[in-house]
Amino acid sequence: MRIIAADSGGALLDERFEPTHVVCTVAVLVEPPYRYPPALLPEPAFCPADDSYPLLVRELELCRLLLESHEADVIHFDMSLRGIRLDELEMSELARLPERVRVKLMRIVPKLTFIASEMWASKGVPAIAIGKESVPVRIAELSCAAHAVLFSAEKALEEGRRLLLGLPTSCTVISSGSTLIARSLLPAEHDLMGFAKDEHGIMASVELKEALNPIARGFRMVEIRPKVS
Amino acid sequence: MRIIAADSGGALLDERFEPTHVVCTVAVLVEPPYRYPPALLPEPAFCPADDSYPLLVRELELCRLLLESHEADVIHFDMSLRGIRLDELEMSELARLPERVRVKLMRIVPKLTFIASEMWASKGVPAIAIGKESVPVRIAELSCAAHAVLFSAEKALEEGRRLLLGLPTSCTVISSGSTLIARSLLPAEHDLMGFAKDEHGIMASVELKEALNPIARGFRMVEIRPKVS
Amino acid sequence: MRIIAADSGGALLDERFEPTHVVCTVAVLVEPPYRYPPALLPEPAFCPADDSYPLLVRELELCRLLLESHEADVIHFDMSLRGIRLDELEMSELARLPERVRVKLMRIVPKLTFIASEMWASKGVPAIAIGKESVPVRIAELSCAAHAVLFSAEKALEEGRRLLLGLPTSCTVISSGSTLIARSLLPAEHDLMGFAKDEHGIMASVELKEALNPIARGFRMVEIRPKVS
Repeated sequence: MRIIAADSGGALLDERFEPTHVVCTVAVLVEPPYRYPPALLPEPAFCPADDSYPLLVRELELCRLLLESHEADVIHFDMSLRGIRLDELEMSELARLPERVRVKLMRIVPKLTFIASEMWASKGVPAIAIGKESVPVRIAELSCAAHAVLFSAEKALEEGRRLLLGLPTSCTVISSGSTLIARSLLPAEHDLMGFAKDEHGIMASVELKEALNPIARGFRMVEIRPKVS
Repeated sequence: MRIIAADSGGALLDERFEPTHVVCTVAVLVEPPYRYPPALLPEPAFCPADDSYPLLVRELELCRLLLESHEADVIHFDMSLRGIRLDELEMSELARLPERVRVKLMRIVPKLTFIASEMWASKGVPAIAIGKESVPVRIAELSCAAHAVLFSAEKALEEGRRLLLGLPTSCTVISSGSTLIARSLLPAEHDLMGFAKDEHGIMASVELKEALNPIARGFRMVEIRPKVS
Repeated sequence: MRIIAADSGGALLDERFEPTHVVCTVAVLVEPPYRYPPALLPEPAFCPADDSYPLLVRELELCRLLLESHEADVIHFDMSLRGIRLDELEMSELARLPERVRVKLMRIVPKLTFIASEMWASKGVPAIAIGKESVPVRIAELSCAAHAVLFSAEKALEEGRRLLLGLPTSCTVISSGSTLIARSLLPAEHDLMGFAKDEHGIMASVELKEALNPIARGFRMVEIRPKVS
């Protein structure tokens, strides 16, 4: 089965380790044995962390874009609603969610069902709200981790200052030649990976220091500092 | 302490990775340091996944059988009811469970209390509903993983076709000589193991390919294919 | 950021693997990259496991003691109440907790707010109820694991008998020269550590055997036995 999935992630942190901005969105194509993405579509976001719901729409748009150049059997969307189809999603499905979440979701649901219906009509590919149970969504999350380091390094260089980046849950990123590799640290996911290509040699100009986020167990963070030449 | 436990597991998957049949039941004897089973009693099941409650009765029967040839201090049963004794289990204990589960359990509870009472009367060994907190139950689950690969390989050869087997949560199986070894991938369980003996050299005639189940994070699956000679 | 945290842990187990006594309390100082404690303050407790709430007060007192000799920006307290400040803690915050827990907490809350207020007034350092989300609290827990082995070994020698020690969740302890090292076995915590110094060479006189606690998955235990000379 060929699966397209997307996720947003990586968070710039303030000095109290609280997230201020979500760094990027990445769509991925995943094939058996479902370990890494042979194709992906990344995009920087730097979207305020307290208003990041529009990124869900962007995730589905990037899935649609990737679907234009690659065949797939299904789209895995990062919303955990028992795997129901997004084009058949009704507002009543959201009834059980907490008030605060529901109000924000209601604003974007019409856009999600519209894009999902379009992909179903034109390509015959359904998008399902499978969320955290999906391995391709996790691979998209790992790919966000790798791209978040790349995009944040770029930003740190442009602004000539140190940035603190919170990684997605339970993963670590290493920079190896022209590739950034994000690996899962979760049990039974030791062979999952996400990638980012450092095509402009940005990583050579920054220093990385990974540490644990002291106020959020399971989350690691990377301090990114322009190299003094 | 010598503990006997049992579990059922391994699931044949359809091409959408949904379980169709539960593959086997295994009872195990476990002794300090509680890492692997010095004695076990496996049995193929291939029971429909949507009607697998009768396997719970079979689990307790296999425990009783194993108890006939091996001494033990307690039976750990894979039902999570705060460790209450199965021979003292009353229907009212099930009140908090969801309707759907309760109805199915009510049909088998009389059989469970009967078998448990019998073991208590004849051997003085209590059976407790400790469920997922029990390490011996996990070792039974790992032993199911190993036997599920063996029994599914046998079936794949008989039927001359490829089978897709879903493993129990967070474990991996390797075939080494005449033994199949299942290891836990969960934190703090790196030294737990289950085994299956391949006495008829079945594994030499099949090819195994392990991958992640893309729609169920934490679960791995094995593609089993008869070797082309 | 410099963080002081404390925890109590390690549990003597009876022969049915049930906890009878909590072994010790340890306060730690943690600095970037938040992996191990450069300073710590341990204390044996051997407090009955069914009445261990007074240890929470002792944890905060040890934090205060450590704060007298070391600078810190914040105190992480092992109570999970969304990170609210202990000096501003009101009884109404406990309303959502289960009856049994609330009654016991209510007796110690006045003491906790008193100590927290004092630290805030004299040093300007707030104590927050961040609990299990805190990496420094986990490092304190690992340091309890290491000291629990040391203090239990001492007790086993004094009393000339075998003791069974339950370790905190998902960790393992090794004795290496004059140091006991506790490592986390949880995902994304592979680089966390706690320590204990064996200044009187106690570990040379005991034998350790680590096993899994068969009735509590994720928890390991250590059998400590005086060496026969």
